[in-house]
Amino acid sequence: MFGITPSARLRPSPFFEATRADGVTAFSTYNHMLMPTSFGHPEAEYWRLINGVSMWDVACERQVELRGRDAGRLAQILAPRDLSKAKVGQGKYVPLCNHAGALINDPILLKLADDRYWLSIADSNIWFWARAIAAERKLEVAVSEPDVSPLAVQGPKAEKVVAALFGDWVRELKYFWFRETTLEGIPVAVARSGWSKQGGFEIYLMDGSQGARLWNLVKDAGKAWDIGPGSPNFCERVESGLLSYGGDTDDHTNPYEVRLGKYVDLEVADDVIGIQALRRIHATGARRHQLGVTLEGEEPTQFGFLWHPIYRDGHKVGDLTNCAWSYRLKRNIGFALIDRACAVGDTVDVVKDGKPTRGALCELPFL
Amino acid sequence: MFGITPSARLRPSPFFEATRADGVTAFSTYNHMLMPTSFGHPEAEYWRLINGVSMWDVACERQVELRGRDAGRLAQILAPRDLSKAKVGQGKYVPLCNHAGALINDPILLKLADDRYWLSIADSNIWFWARAIAAERKLEVAVSEPDVSPLAVQGPKAEKVVAALFGDWVRELKYFWFRETTLEGIPVAVARSGWSKQGGFEIYLMDGSQGARLWNLVKDAGKAWDIGPGSPNFCERVESGLLSYGGDTDDHTNPYEVRLGKYVDLEVADDVIGIQALRRIHATGARRHQLGVTLEGEEPTQFGFLWHPIYRDGHKVGDLTNCAWSYRLKRNIGFALIDRACAVGDTVDVVKDGKPTRGALCELPFL
Repeated sequence: MFGITPSARLRPSPFFEATRADGVTAFSTYNHMLMPTSFGHPEAEYWRLINGVSMWDVACERQVELRGRDAGRLAQILAPRDLSKAKVGQGKYVPLCNHAGALINDPILLKLADDRYWLSIADSNIWFWARAIAAERKLEVAVSEPDVSPLAVQGPKAEKVVAALFGDWVRELKYFWFRETTLEGIPVAVARSGWSKQGGFEIYLMDGSQGARLWNLVKDAGKAWDIGPGSPNFCERVESGLLSYGGDTDDHTNPYEVRLGKYVDLEVADDVIGIQALRRIHATGARRHQLGVTLEGEEPTQFGFLWHPIYRDGHKVGDLTNCAWSYRLKRNIGFALIDRACAVGDTVDVVKDGKPTRGALCELPFL
Repeated sequence: MFGITPSARLRPSPFFEATRADGVTAFSTYNHMLMPTSFGHPEAEYWRLINGVSMWDVACERQVELRGRDAGRLAQILAPRDLSKAKVGQGKYVPLCNHAGALINDPILLKLADDRYWLSIADSNIWFWARAIAAERKLEVAVSEPDVSPLAVQGPKAEKVVAALFGDWVRELKYFWFRETTLEGIPVAVARSGWSKQGGFEIYLMDGSQGARLWNLVKDAGKAWDIGPGSPNFCERVESGLLSYGGDTDDHTNPYEVRLGKYVDLEVADDVIGIQALRRIHATGARRHQLGVTLEGEEPTQFGFLWHPIYRDGHKVGDLTNCAWSYRLKRNIGFALIDRACAVGDTVDVVKDGKPTRGALCELPFL
């Protein structure tokens, strides 16, 4: 592992000092912010998420705030999903596409008020995108990055911890819904969401100066359930079939190729960006689709961080876009972005450094 | 120093294996690519750049290609600098601004043909920006990321190395001009440019599969002048007054605030993005400007990677956006983005962890 050099281009999160005190050992970068990726015990961090409760600094999941008379109109122009019935307090997972229908992000859209929305984004610059569209279409809306930083509490015991902090009302929160509140004077929004399939919440800190305080309040409340620090878990997200925008997608990937077609509403208005391209793609069918691959071999294999070509019958048919050792399945598993002619059950070869590894295509998620 | 976790969101460069073989120890990320930042000997790497010749993997300085009938038109719409006289083979440093006149990147624009340009960008997503503008204005132009990766050769002996590789014609290249050629069959463009003030060239590799070969050809040719691996040098760039977009700028910084006013031509057409805002800012004067700060103290101080507030007479007047120990000046020096009422010679306090360090404002560059 190499070191990461500090830079003002890569901001620390409001939880940086707290994660440092708790022994963070490695980072990735995401939206020009440092995101903790390890506290030195990868397998223990995994099982804590599966069986207990884990807390994550995901401040890097930044917010693109749309505010003003045309905020709702801009949100709908950006997202090819019908937002007309979205309620204040509701979040919706939305694919964002460019004019060619290619995915440019897959945020959660939170409706805070009729004239105020947050796009809680994956790792690409949607501020520039939204500002360009707003200005070119002369919309009355301000696009900004507010002082808002999510802290995720994930795992089967997450609800107990969050209820202990905020009260039993959190148990009634529906998936992706949220409520603004305070915790010992710290302004937050509590949402039922998070980048795992183990259940949990995201606490959106709305005052960056209170990062260490919020971190420690969550840590103290979680002690009864043996909470510990973790991070978006690579193994769990692969097992659970969660998409990583920019990791599992390329410049030409459309929502239909990566199992997001159900979040596209083809009947939205013609001025929604990408909708005309998406209608064409839907009519002809996407060229690729996303399946799982289970590889042969009973030891963890390091596939590194490149995409690896996938062959079937001697022809390249797609790419392996990630690969993790599954602690539960005891197999190397990954996602294939692959020609639509390939199907579940097909035998393929994944090639790394010229050497093939045999695998079988399967449905996602794995678990 | 913390580790950096590999991820498909953070691409290795075509020179990755070669830099690994040469002992790279640390990286930053830049345009979603790993950029080497250290080979383990920071002071030696600095003096090699000042006195000799250094080679850098700056593949992360990606290209935004504009291609098609309206490529030149789009370039001019994006850049508030008059491009009407740009020649094929010429590069120009251009500030890019949003509609409010805030800087969003500061690339070199290379004109490859009348219908083909590259923006060789700093660390922000100009593909999304350019595609949004092109699509909204219905321009006939394709915006893409070509397989092009610069390798910089920098330092007073760089010209000797590059001439040994390509021939004496490189000695005649004017600053920012370039020529397409091949090196042992490898397609490249050779430009007189680079992010240092020590002179040198950037070799734009145009076939990513040839990264290790090109790296080793440069390394072999440079042996006679004791070439070694380095990276964009933090100390040298601070001494030389070179701007880091995203490091020394925030979401509201305009070109006039950071010494780029001379690259803005106020008489460009009204459809150039940001020009109307820039005319207003120019008329009233920018709120801030950029000066140097020389701090008291004769030992290197770790200011870390945050901005630090600057006070004058007890009032906050701006921020220290970087701070380096200057090996030549034997002082901690940095850039101040500061109220325009502050002037060269003023005494200020830079506050870190509640403690002030005395400094004096000065002109940039330092050297």
